Amino acid sequence: MDKVNLAEKLGQIDEVYKPKVVAEYNDNKLVLCKAKGEFVWHKHDDTDDCFLVLKGRLVIQLRDREVELNEGEMFVVPRGVEHCPRADEEAEILLIEPIGTVNTGDAADSELTAEAERI
Amino acid sequence: MDKVNLAEKLGQIDEVYKPKVVAEYNDNKLVLCKAKGEFVWHKHDDTDDCFLVLKGRLVIQLRDREVELNEGEMFVVPRGVEHCPRADEEAEILLIEPIGTVNTGDAADSELTAEAERI
Repeated sequence: MDKVNLAEKLGQIDEVYKPKVVAEYNDNKLVLCKAKGEFVWHKHDDTDDCFLVLKGRLVIQLRDREVELNEGEMFVVPRGVEHCPRADEEAEILLIEPIGTVNTGDAADSELTAEAERI
Repeated sequence: MDKVNLAEKLGQIDEVYKPKVVAEYNDNKLVLCKAKGEFVWHKHDDTDDCFLVLKGRLVIQLRDREVELNEGEMFVVPRGVEHCPRADEEAEILLIEPIGTVNTGDAADSELTAEAERI
């Protein structure tokens, strides 16, 4: 029950696509992640996926279009929709996901699958 | 299923303590709110209350202490905990709450009670 300073927490993250839990809200985790390069195509059948870009630019690739998110822009990928985030330069992201959500969804055999550590 | 630019949405808000829904994530609403002055003491027995300050400073008064949130700082008020936000200067806030949550919780007879309009 302490406040969370996002910049301070981001300063503790030195790897990309290694999600870190910074707070919990009901049954959800609030996750910080640095992104660079392409993630992996995946979907979450049981949950929406909420992205807020804190710094930089993140492209959410969908099968039929791309959504370009700059700082202060948010996008919710509906459950079941395939997506693949991509950051050409390093970006910083805040995500909201139900506790227990695997970062790579149905592509859990990806080498990018990572359990979100609490920092 | 469009992206949300938080600054653009905030530009559409001209009243304080009138929450506006800008996105939905599962059974939750993502709410923008401008704050100035003191809100009302209240609690939510059924949900945590997640605050992220986007601009300015918000003080979350609790019965035993105050939590001062500056830009880029987040705090989750646990369910059942009485709190009263206060902003000495205008602040801009992103909140996450379950859909159906009343902004004033158990103080729903307050004149500050307001249904969050979708913008």
